[in-house]
Amino acid sequence: MGAVRVGVLGLGLIGGSVARRLAPDHDVRAWDPDPATRAAAAAAGLALASDLGRPDVTVLATPMDALPEALAHWTGGTVTDVGSVKGPVLAAARAAGLADRYVGGHPMAGSERSGFAAADPALLDGAVWVLGLEDDTDTDRWLTVAALVTGAGCRVLPTTAAAHDEAQARISGLPHLLASALAAAGARGGPLATALSAGSFRDGTRVAGARAEFVAALCDGNRAALAAVLDETLADLAAARDALRSGGTVRPLATAGHAARRAWSEPAPTTAVRLDRAAPDLRADLLALGAAGGWLDAVTPAELHGHCPPTHPA
Amino acid sequence: MGAVRVGVLGLGLIGGSVARRLAPDHDVRAWDPDPATRAAAAAAGLALASDLGRPDVTVLATPMDALPEALAHWTGGTVTDVGSVKGPVLAAARAAGLADRYVGGHPMAGSERSGFAAADPALLDGAVWVLGLEDDTDTDRWLTVAALVTGAGCRVLPTTAAAHDEAQARISGLPHLLASALAAAGARGGPLATALSAGSFRDGTRVAGARAEFVAALCDGNRAALAAVLDETLADLAAARDALRSGGTVRPLATAGHAARRAWSEPAPTTAVRLDRAAPDLRADLLALGAAGGWLDAVTPAELHGHCPPTHPA
Repeated sequence: MGAVRVGVLGLGLIGGSVARRLAPDHDVRAWDPDPATRAAAAAAGLALASDLGRPDVTVLATPMDALPEALAHWTGGTVTDVGSVKGPVLAAARAAGLADRYVGGHPMAGSERSGFAAADPALLDGAVWVLGLEDDTDTDRWLTVAALVTGAGCRVLPTTAAAHDEAQARISGLPHLLASALAAAGARGGPLATALSAGSFRDGTRVAGARAEFVAALCDGNRAALAAVLDETLADLAAARDALRSGGTVRPLATAGHAARRAWSEPAPTTAVRLDRAAPDLRADLLALGAAGGWLDAVTPAELHGHCPPTHPA
Repeated sequence: MGAVRVGVLGLGLIGGSVARRLAPDHDVRAWDPDPATRAAAAAAGLALASDLGRPDVTVLATPMDALPEALAHWTGGTVTDVGSVKGPVLAAARAAGLADRYVGGHPMAGSERSGFAAADPALLDGAVWVLGLEDDTDTDRWLTVAALVTGAGCRVLPTTAAAHDEAQARISGLPHLLASALAAAGARGGPLATALSAGSFRDGTRVAGARAEFVAALCDGNRAALAAVLDETLADLAAARDALRSGGTVRPLATAGHAARRAWSEPAPTTAVRLDRAAPDLRADLLALGAAGGWLDAVTPAELHGHCPPTHPA
């Protein structure tokens, strides 16, 4: 695609990485409420402007709790965001009457670090970037954002806010809470436990190094889906505890976990997928692609090119 | 120390690594019941012998469930093991009348891989190696094993079987079960969850890649301590779940986990420690060192040299 006017509001880890990624190819104006962040962004070569002008696409990269207000003040173009939970932002966009301008987004990239100092265009290399596709999403605007994101070297995965949030609870909220619980359990063991800890404890606690406010926003923002997933995991762990108490074995859980990790770490080769941009069921085709774990690599004026794991029924 | 006659029984990941680590400096004879393993070990230069002779130290590196029988047939020298749980082996040693010859051991090293093919002397570089010191442990035999282990470049941490197993539940059993539960929760999310998973899921599930029988042996062998630690963790996670359901926040758990991980990943500098080998309270001194997370680096004829985190009261 040609150069697009892009506004980026919020220059933390993700917003900063996105702005720096898009700046070489597009007309990017960025802003952050923090003067020190703006100074660092200007020093990195970004064009700073409190008035983002009339961008074709505005990327809201503020903290989750500031997104509803940022949306409510929006006045033009297509608006997307990078929030880690999509349901609440979608609801806010609808409440603000912006459902037809809003395309929810979530790049699946992160780091224990935060802030513009940690921003890095390479963080987005080949990253999966969810774009929300609801019944009331404008497909043309969705494709505009998808073209921008694929053009930046990311994989666009189409799904709904509800499906995203359910999956997100499993693969992001839950690992953060388990890491926190493990770190706390280790600390209760005192210096002896610390001295004995090795690789399994190190890797299992890594993301507990994230700031507590980040973890809380990630989890509290997705409370319904995460509580349901925690119910499942509490049941699995309670069954293991009960087996240990009654002379049984944790083997069923170990076996299920081993099979799941193995399937995860040895994905089958993907198949190339091509969709007609003018297909009458394009929305359904895209959602089927995302539900199967597939993604788009490129958006051309006529076609959509992507890849999909072999589970895809097509 | 001079060359010691060492027998190693069992040449899996740990036994194989130990035998290969000790062979250049000591008179090592090794054995494994599996012919293919013996062939691989012989090809790697180890001396194989079904009769281990009359070693000064025998290292039992069989699977946990074979240790009691291996102990019961023991006839000479000092015997140690490398099992990941110490209470049951200590009980078996006492039951076999070998309490004064047995020194429980556990090198804190591992890998997702297993078997002699994965054995690697470098796996033990600087590893913490627990040596159990009970009221009925022979201190001279304990020091013989400690000299062998420190001479191999490992850090000897003195503690009791009970304290080891409690810590082990926190820093090994628990992370393995949490990794399994996380992997299973991700798999229940289907291909979409797999496609969205990134670093937090990858690291949180890594040790679920271990063989299920290994995880089951690790956990089932330490059932009482692990069940108690699971009670704590279930309570932490249930509190987070309840907070999510009631409009609250997971922040208390995230804050505790962050503080714990930070303290773990930024240990304070250690202090050098020197103990008189003939001290009347040597046993108590050693146990105090281990309880503070300290270890021995070297055993000389007169002294014990080690290091300790600043929590050590000495």
